[in-house]
Amino acid sequence: VIAGLAPAVPVVDLTHQIPPFEVRAGALTLWRVAPWLAPGVILAVVDPGVGTPRRAVAVEVASAGAFLVGPDNGLLVPAAHRLGPLTAAVDLGQGPGATFDGRDVFAPAAARLASGADMTSLGPSVDPATLVGEPVELSGVGEDGAMRCEVLWVDRFGNVELDADAAAVARLKTNLVVGGRPARWVRAFGDLDPSELGVYLDAFGVVALCCNRGSAADLAGVRAGDEVTLAAAPGQAR
Amino acid sequence: VIAGLAPAVPVVDLTHQIPPFEVRAGALTLWRVAPWLAPGVILAVVDPGVGTPRRAVAVEVASAGAFLVGPDNGLLVPAAHRLGPLTAAVDLGQGPGATFDGRDVFAPAAARLASGADMTSLGPSVDPATLVGEPVELSGVGEDGAMRCEVLWVDRFGNVELDADAAAVARLKTNLVVGGRPARWVRAFGDLDPSELGVYLDAFGVVALCCNRGSAADLAGVRAGDEVTLAAAPGQAR
Amino acid sequence: VIAGLAPAVPVVDLTHQIPPFEVRAGALTLWRVAPWLAPGVILAVVDPGVGTPRRAVAVEVASAGAFLVGPDNGLLVPAAHRLGPLTAAVDLGQGPGATFDGRDVFAPAAARLASGADMTSLGPSVDPATLVGEPVELSGVGEDGAMRCEVLWVDRFGNVELDADAAAVARLKTNLVVGGRPARWVRAFGDLDPSELGVYLDAFGVVALCCNRGSAADLAGVRAGDEVTLAAAPGQAR
Repeated sequence: VIAGLAPAVPVVDLTHQIPPFEVRAGALTLWRVAPWLAPGVILAVVDPGVGTPRRAVAVEVASAGAFLVGPDNGLLVPAAHRLGPLTAAVDLGQGPGATFDGRDVFAPAAARLASGADMTSLGPSVDPATLVGEPVELSGVGEDGAMRCEVLWVDRFGNVELDADAAAVARLKTNLVVGGRPARWVRAFGDLDPSELGVYLDAFGVVALCCNRGSAADLAGVRAGDEVTLAAAPGQAR
Repeated sequence: VIAGLAPAVPVVDLTHQIPPFEVRAGALTLWRVAPWLAPGVILAVVDPGVGTPRRAVAVEVASAGAFLVGPDNGLLVPAAHRLGPLTAAVDLGQGPGATFDGRDVFAPAAARLASGADMTSLGPSVDPATLVGEPVELSGVGEDGAMRCEVLWVDRFGNVELDADAAAVARLKTNLVVGGRPARWVRAFGDLDPSELGVYLDAFGVVALCCNRGSAADLAGVRAGDEVTLAAAPGQAR
Repeated sequence: VIAGLAPAVPVVDLTHQIPPFEVRAGALTLWRVAPWLAPGVILAVVDPGVGTPRRAVAVEVASAGAFLVGPDNGLLVPAAHRLGPLTAAVDLGQGPGATFDGRDVFAPAAARLASGADMTSLGPSVDPATLVGEPVELSGVGEDGAMRCEVLWVDRFGNVELDADAAAVARLKTNLVVGGRPARWVRAFGDLDPSELGVYLDAFGVVALCCNRGSAADLAGVRAGDEVTLAAAPGQAR
């Protein structure tokens, strides 16, 4: 559909591996990679509410030169906020009776935006503050010196992304305790011994648990949605 | 290979997930999406007979501006007929001794067609009526008022495509019986209660069973190849 | 990243299905397809040593018009040698602290090479002879008339690629013994009876075991890394 409407526009096909109906998994995937997608038009569809009155929207983040197109169900907002302030949004309306809005509503809108169309030509303006979804809030250090983090994602290598503020982790010491287990703040997998748990800033700029050629999720015994406490190990010199 | 022969031709890579050797699954996938691929050159390969005397062919559907390229084993004919009358076909000949006709026979032919070559320059003409495979015949309402349908496909969400004529289903009532279970003719998933079975016209224009955030195949207890009977539920006002 | 740096360069996305950390599987996949990728820039990443002092490199094979870009861990060398003599190499240096060298080191280097940059502008020259990895050495016929081969790969159809020299296999007779089982040298799958084991030159120019619509790996009881002995069946006329 995009090739038909905008043949000169290059399309980069990122992934079709978001589990069915898992809006949050899709939203976090998009949030993770958004900085490397802008400037451009970002089209995403995880859409269990297709056919219901949920809105179809396009969102502009002018400072990043980015438009995000998809269902208004929380999929787009975390990524949009990571790119910058939301400057405008429009309601793309309902599809023509079919249920493949990715093809019939979102792809045409993305093609038009990528061809330089004014976003306001795609539908009536809506207040970006009314969009469904929240920015990802990163956990900081609590009064007891510990960070209470949520496991955002476990990738196919077993690396474990946390919603932890990287600067806060860095202010803790190199030797950490993660869910009761010793762990070490490292620059990369390769700095770890085989069964050692590491904490690092991953390639998406997200704090993550890792280990060297193995699954940190298995080692730490955690999965997406779990809470993980991160703290400095006792007995380190300041 | 296509990029080498026709660097300016955009290639859209649709899927590599047809199960090995399953020509019918491939043929039905192509049939499903064909209306959104034309005009253009459609290359498809599911080819258990590679290396046998099965023909390699290109088929023209002039009214759709479409060419289909692949093995003459039933893969292309359902999609071609959905696009329009088959206007011409050629025999592309045998590959150069290797067994990767997708790379060595079909891709070069597709690249040449996409570059504007006359199809007759690719090989001797063959009568389209001799091509292997049949159009998909949609089931209508039988004399007893019931539709006997085959399950064509279960997608990864559990939606169940049937070979049912949509107009015939629509002439039945809103309340249906599908394989003995109550079901409701709906416009979209979202109109259903969680454990309710629905029948709808899916995004490919195919009649399908669905449910709201679940697997209709599991709910109805059916899989590809099964026969499913569809009828109006008794007791509805005309 | 490539689209940002070199928007006019077409990118062909080959596979993301190499198992995590399996450098040899990646190296053999690249070796298999390399003749159909050149001329061009070949970017590959299977990189368990990311973040360790392993080098990031670009390698030139001038006779093939090819550059290979990736980690210096054995991934690139088999494919490079299949394309021709290695004419030059450079060290691309370390990434900027993140651990996604595919995005931050290799993709930018590949984009620059594809845009016509001189390879020496990407980093200091290194001697190609110091690159990690060896060419694939094909097995010939031993003094006892048998070929001792390693299973390089089993594809998703169950075809079994061996590191056997094709000319040597062809000098054996049509009737073979493979791991004690009778097998036949054939041109293609279709020449085999259903439960018969075949040996053929596959579409990548590699000697492989096959059968007709089934898994040769299951039939022969072998998997990647196994040794398989291949010999002429006794009693054939010379």
